[in-house]
Amino acid sequence: MHHFLEANPRLETPFFLIDLDLIEQQYRLLREALPFAACYFAMKSNSSTAVIQRLNQLGSRFEAASIYEIRRCLALGVPPRDIHFGNTIKKDSHILEAYRLGVHSYAFDSSQELEKIAQLAPGSNVSCRLATDGKGAVWGLCRKFGRDPDDVVELMKYAHSLGLRAYGISFHTGSQQRSAGAWRRTIEICADIIQRLNQQQVYPRLINLGGGFPSYQYAGDEMQPQGDIFEYGKVIKTAVDELLPQGIDCVMEPGRFITAAAGLVKATVILVLDKATDGVPTRWVYLDAGRFNGLYESVDVEYPIITNRTDGTAIRTVLAGPTCDSDDVMYDRDRAVFLPDTLTQGDSLIFTNAGAYSKSYMTVDFNGFPPMQEYVV
Amino acid sequence: MHHFLEANPRLETPFFLIDLDLIEQQYRLLREALPFAACYFAMKSNSSTAVIQRLNQLGSRFEAASIYEIRRCLALGVPPRDIHFGNTIKKDSHILEAYRLGVHSYAFDSSQELEKIAQLAPGSNVSCRLATDGKGAVWGLCRKFGRDPDDVVELMKYAHSLGLRAYGISFHTGSQQRSAGAWRRTIEICADIIQRLNQQQVYPRLINLGGGFPSYQYAGDEMQPQGDIFEYGKVIKTAVDELLPQGIDCVMEPGRFITAAAGLVKATVILVLDKATDGVPTRWVYLDAGRFNGLYESVDVEYPIITNRTDGTAIRTVLAGPTCDSDDVMYDRDRAVFLPDTLTQGDSLIFTNAGAYSKSYMTVDFNGFPPMQEYVV
Repeated sequence: MHHFLEANPRLETPFFLIDLDLIEQQYRLLREALPFAACYFAMKSNSSTAVIQRLNQLGSRFEAASIYEIRRCLALGVPPRDIHFGNTIKKDSHILEAYRLGVHSYAFDSSQELEKIAQLAPGSNVSCRLATDGKGAVWGLCRKFGRDPDDVVELMKYAHSLGLRAYGISFHTGSQQRSAGAWRRTIEICADIIQRLNQQQVYPRLINLGGGFPSYQYAGDEMQPQGDIFEYGKVIKTAVDELLPQGIDCVMEPGRFITAAAGLVKATVILVLDKATDGVPTRWVYLDAGRFNGLYESVDVEYPIITNRTDGTAIRTVLAGPTCDSDDVMYDRDRAVFLPDTLTQGDSLIFTNAGAYSKSYMTVDFNGFPPMQEYVV
Repeated sequence: MHHFLEANPRLETPFFLIDLDLIEQQYRLLREALPFAACYFAMKSNSSTAVIQRLNQLGSRFEAASIYEIRRCLALGVPPRDIHFGNTIKKDSHILEAYRLGVHSYAFDSSQELEKIAQLAPGSNVSCRLATDGKGAVWGLCRKFGRDPDDVVELMKYAHSLGLRAYGISFHTGSQQRSAGAWRRTIEICADIIQRLNQQQVYPRLINLGGGFPSYQYAGDEMQPQGDIFEYGKVIKTAVDELLPQGIDCVMEPGRFITAAAGLVKATVILVLDKATDGVPTRWVYLDAGRFNGLYESVDVEYPIITNRTDGTAIRTVLAGPTCDSDDVMYDRDRAVFLPDTLTQGDSLIFTNAGAYSKSYMTVDFNGFPPMQEYVV
């Protein structure tokens, strides 16, 4: 990425840059740390053509949130058997299309969805999503998806009775999960569910560990990830070996872990202004990138920021995006970001670790601003 | 709109429907209520081609948040003299392009921006944005834009000294402003600024009243708009007559008032589920439209919702969008929405009063979902 940035110092900003070798590096790292779990890449974190192609070459499988992601994958040569339709709530027409395209693996968390799948994708493998508490994660991912253990047992039995393969139990411990213990706790619940199902002649074959592996520490992140990804791998493997019966396969659905560190957003300073704000002297730096054209996750994430300024003193700085929306502001009240007081119009800010979800949250044309350009190295 | 919906009951959802006659009706209503203020339509609320064309036919002028909106306007035949570049922070290249295209009216709120405009768009009309407290509004629009009165005086003098026409003072009392008194309070401050400027031989000619006129009451809106738009018109006209010196023109920049009531989003129920959620029995209705493909403002706005169900009892309902994002949920904890308990898969929900900002906030392809289709009647 450095080479690209150095070779193109005047490229119009804002732009998004993704490095495929870093994608590969993160993928390999994860496979090494969790060799016992097949990888289904969560495309929602970054569904750029080049990213899908590289991961397909490396043998990754793919988790799709929608029929649109499935179409994209298939168009790029991913075999349908390597695609899991991971959204638990799907339109009838989308299930039917996926099935006809050869996708035979579906997530669910309700009897209604099972009935749809049984009718439109008969005989498919289905995985029931178990609810988690999301503790220890930046994004808990609770409430909307997943069911309590008792419900999971009933739903898996129902799946079996409908002629589907009651194949797996899936869960998501939450995004940027800082505690490997979250997986162990949930695997323990899965083990109990499997035992109860086995007693009723239903034999799940798979645990889907979800995603949420923290790939790095965001700036300003007070909670430390407990150990690195190999530590996570060990804790999870131990839990699997100790708690689950023989013959249960593991898969995972990483997104952010693979893509975050592989991307950056480069923005330019349009204006620097010190002004009283609600009576308090405040440093404002207005950029050509903001929450609605690439940096939506700045609400929750403090991207490590690199500037071209090596002089000056770091002072607290509020960043603002280019739109007329007063919400298009980053690091205003909740979080504090410190940047050189010498920063001036024309300087550049590079938001690193921005390879996940920065592109996909971009708006179509809020205030007329187009989605940012993407470059791939 | 009813005719279109009845004639196309099976049109694939989600879609966005805009009614140009309602756009015209709202525009005329506003012009009648505030005949003393020229109208600059804030395109950011809905920059559909057909909306711009209809308002251009009606003689509206246009407020642009970006060079991209200016290009769109000009391509549709809007004369450049009818365009105001209302973003106070602009890229050099965008000022230069606007000026070359014949746009000679610019907003600003800093000396840095003035220097840019003086250099790149010499002799132009400039309007300085005054900060407001945003009290009484759904969206306060404070902090990011606008300056204190003392700063406005200095900046207007500076504009004059740079050879620009220190033309106007602009403000925005906040979006969906429920109190006409907010305008009176701010006009009082403007009057004081003008008096101070006149004493120093600087003579502004214009007050820009901004937008924020509440066009209707959102469902669940506890604060009542104080009177209708004619009441607002009277209060503002009285303030202008009583407080401002002779010869000061007024303009306004309405967006939501013109577009909100003229649009709707039609969505389909994908699945209805009663499940324990954090231990509480909860009714979930999963839709094909959500926060990231058309209903972003549901965070702040309770759209009046129409369903095809006339039977059943209204029960508290959490709505969820189609993506795998657990934030893609509407009316979960903060706000309560009540819908028929008979609602079932395949039913339709029509979010009315959704003509403003629903399209522009849509994401490019979050989770692979495309922006929703737009229809115009």
